[in-house]
Amino acid sequence: MNRVVVIGGGFGGLLAVRGLRGADVDVTLVDRQNFHLFQPLAYQVATGALSSVEIATPLRQILRRQRNARVLLAEATGFDLDARTVHLGKLANGEELRSLEYDTLVVAGGSAYSYFGHDEWAEFAPELKSLEGALDLRSRILLAFEAAEVELDPAAREAWLTFVVVGGGPTGVEMAGQIGELARDTLRRDYRVADTRKARVLLVEATDRLLGTFPESLSRRAEKSLTSLGVTPMLSTTVVGVEEGAVELQAGDGEISSVPAHTAVWAAGVNASPLARLLADASGGETDRAGRIVIEPDLTLPGHQKVLVVGDMAAIRDQPLPGVAPVAMQQGRHVARSIRSGANTPFRYRDKGNVATIGRSRAVADIKGVHFSGFPAWVLWLGLHLFYLIGFQNRLIVLTRWTFSYFTRGRNARVIHRVPR
Amino acid sequence: MNRVVVIGGGFGGLLAVRGLRGADVDVTLVDRQNFHLFQPLAYQVATGALSSVEIATPLRQILRRQRNARVLLAEATGFDLDARTVHLGKLANGEELRSLEYDTLVVAGGSAYSYFGHDEWAEFAPELKSLEGALDLRSRILLAFEAAEVELDPAAREAWLTFVVVGGGPTGVEMAGQIGELARDTLRRDYRVADTRKARVLLVEATDRLLGTFPESLSRRAEKSLTSLGVTPMLSTTVVGVEEGAVELQAGDGEISSVPAHTAVWAAGVNASPLARLLADASGGETDRAGRIVIEPDLTLPGHQKVLVVGDMAAIRDQPLPGVAPVAMQQGRHVARSIRSGANTPFRYRDKGNVATIGRSRAVADIKGVHFSGFPAWVLWLGLHLFYLIGFQNRLIVLTRWTFSYFTRGRNARVIHRVPR
Repeated sequence: MNRVVVIGGGFGGLLAVRGLRGADVDVTLVDRQNFHLFQPLAYQVATGALSSVEIATPLRQILRRQRNARVLLAEATGFDLDARTVHLGKLANGEELRSLEYDTLVVAGGSAYSYFGHDEWAEFAPELKSLEGALDLRSRILLAFEAAEVELDPAAREAWLTFVVVGGGPTGVEMAGQIGELARDTLRRDYRVADTRKARVLLVEATDRLLGTFPESLSRRAEKSLTSLGVTPMLSTTVVGVEEGAVELQAGDGEISSVPAHTAVWAAGVNASPLARLLADASGGETDRAGRIVIEPDLTLPGHQKVLVVGDMAAIRDQPLPGVAPVAMQQGRHVARSIRSGANTPFRYRDKGNVATIGRSRAVADIKGVHFSGFPAWVLWLGLHLFYLIGFQNRLIVLTRWTFSYFTRGRNARVIHRVPR
Repeated sequence: MNRVVVIGGGFGGLLAVRGLRGADVDVTLVDRQNFHLFQPLAYQVATGALSSVEIATPLRQILRRQRNARVLLAEATGFDLDARTVHLGKLANGEELRSLEYDTLVVAGGSAYSYFGHDEWAEFAPELKSLEGALDLRSRILLAFEAAEVELDPAAREAWLTFVVVGGGPTGVEMAGQIGELARDTLRRDYRVADTRKARVLLVEATDRLLGTFPESLSRRAEKSLTSLGVTPMLSTTVVGVEEGAVELQAGDGEISSVPAHTAVWAAGVNASPLARLLADASGGETDRAGRIVIEPDLTLPGHQKVLVVGDMAAIRDQPLPGVAPVAMQQGRHVARSIRSGANTPFRYRDKGNVATIGRSRAVADIKGVHFSGFPAWVLWLGLHLFYLIGFQNRLIVLTRWTFSYFTRGRNARVIHRVPR
């Protein structure tokens, strides 16, 4: 029996496992978390529109009827490619738990955002890629409004009502738009002292436009939509410092300014999973600037026909691909097909288009060269996300929450779970 | 304008604030949390049946249309009854934030479970009264099954599959029943190595029967229902030690035994909010054995006509009442009426009955002397809890989850948020 070990239950890994359903193989999925995170909606958890559970489906539940698959909750700590073994460590301390032998290995460790060598900024500007980051951000954002309500000094209150979102990609744009809506619509009547409509949301982007992977006309459209929600896009601007209570920005002309703000959100850069480095070390392979392992066009690790790498942690040699869910999903399906057929074939990404939402009835879409925005793009976005969300119950509940939010502009998932400072 | 300050947004405090809607007063609600917790369903969060957000409604959302009410997120750190002032501290460090003057003060700080002087047990046996405790327990319970799945030694696996619930009141009974169902029904097909149906659930109760506030026949009925779910009620048994991996129990005959178990749940004893002690110190009043402040029959603090105390943290002189939500709710409404009328009248508790659920289609009810159990009691329990849950959206979503769970025996909120060890 072909023993397939898949590391990582994100889009790439999960689709690989599901693609092997019914095949004559024995699949073990290893993840550090017991759930598959629907990361494209993490920003909605961060802004109180959805509950964490609604975008996190237990892996065991997804795979319970796939009899050839099992799940192990553990951390992959090393690879021995000659012995065809993965070392697994305990979650809490990484202490050696056991080793797992494989005939075929699929590594899908994903990526995180990159603080560009300033990991100390993470404390003040949590990233928006993990469920933990999203919940942390939710607490910080809501606590900022609470602090503004009890603060008696106007300047200090203004710093509590200033939010800096770093990164003008889809996640940063969506997050900035949602904070804008939260302040202007949802919370407007909730406070008595703080005027939440005066909240400032700065969206910082290093290049000269938002949504760099979209056509330029849609970037401009998104800028306009954001501005109407009270968001200030700051283009050609980079972050040069983040500390408690302030973010330092450098404008295109080199001028540095300090913005008094207690809440910052990080959604920029790419930092591949450390598994990429481990794989490179084990195989003598190379990683690129973002820490991604360089792989062959058929998604194999160079020199290792039975080791496949998919998703954000991999860079196909001479074939740059965006780090988005559809790439990981298609690669996951592709390796499942390779394993079923026993032959590795080159992967080709089929770009079906791009959609990004900015707020209620505001979105931009680029589907095979057809550009549109506003309500139609927003409805497309809703439909796609509901479709790809896993589980009928989650779809129903998310649809319920969105319907309520649409009509009431409310956000019910406004629980502050912890006090981070 | 009568300035009313209410400390605590639980059942008692919230009902007091809502009872003042439209009255010619100025209400400030102070809480350390930004939500009202529907504590009777916390055990469903702990066992993955519900999401935290579904039982935690933002206080600001509840009160947004009550124009005479405002909410402050802060910690009450002291009372100056002569100066009619409450001191408020910052959430993170208790550091003085500001003082709040009042004409009428309502204190509703609630209670926690009591570890009977062994607070060091809390680390290994979290309590089931706060949202944080419920989420911590959810992670621990689910991680125990995960650990059993990777554990190769049968004895060690058994310790991971042993759960000790301390306290045979409604919460302990409900929790034990739910862990039983989780192991026997929900997770049965999720694991490949661990046989979750072999999980042991021990329900430890110091007295000679479960559900002490119910008629004895219903206690026996509950025992039988629990046993059929694989729960072992251990009556006349006390906990004498809790540590990592083991719980020490003392039977009625004095014999001490150590049970290898990694997961323990605490739902016993009563420990009034520290605000009771602060009030006693400020007024020269007294607290009882459970730390509750002794108050007058009209719910006033002795000698202070304008200071009212409601809910679990108070004990009316010579009038013992159970520490349950209906008491707090009726007291909250009562003080609102007293404030509206300007005259304090004696409080009388109207006991409308008792319902406790054990599992799917299993419950016991005692409504004004009429005892019943099984499906009718269970439907009554469902209806009551949906009715008292705050917010139409939450009701709809909880009903959706319960309907799915009823038919599929699934529990979708099985997210492990953190790794506690």
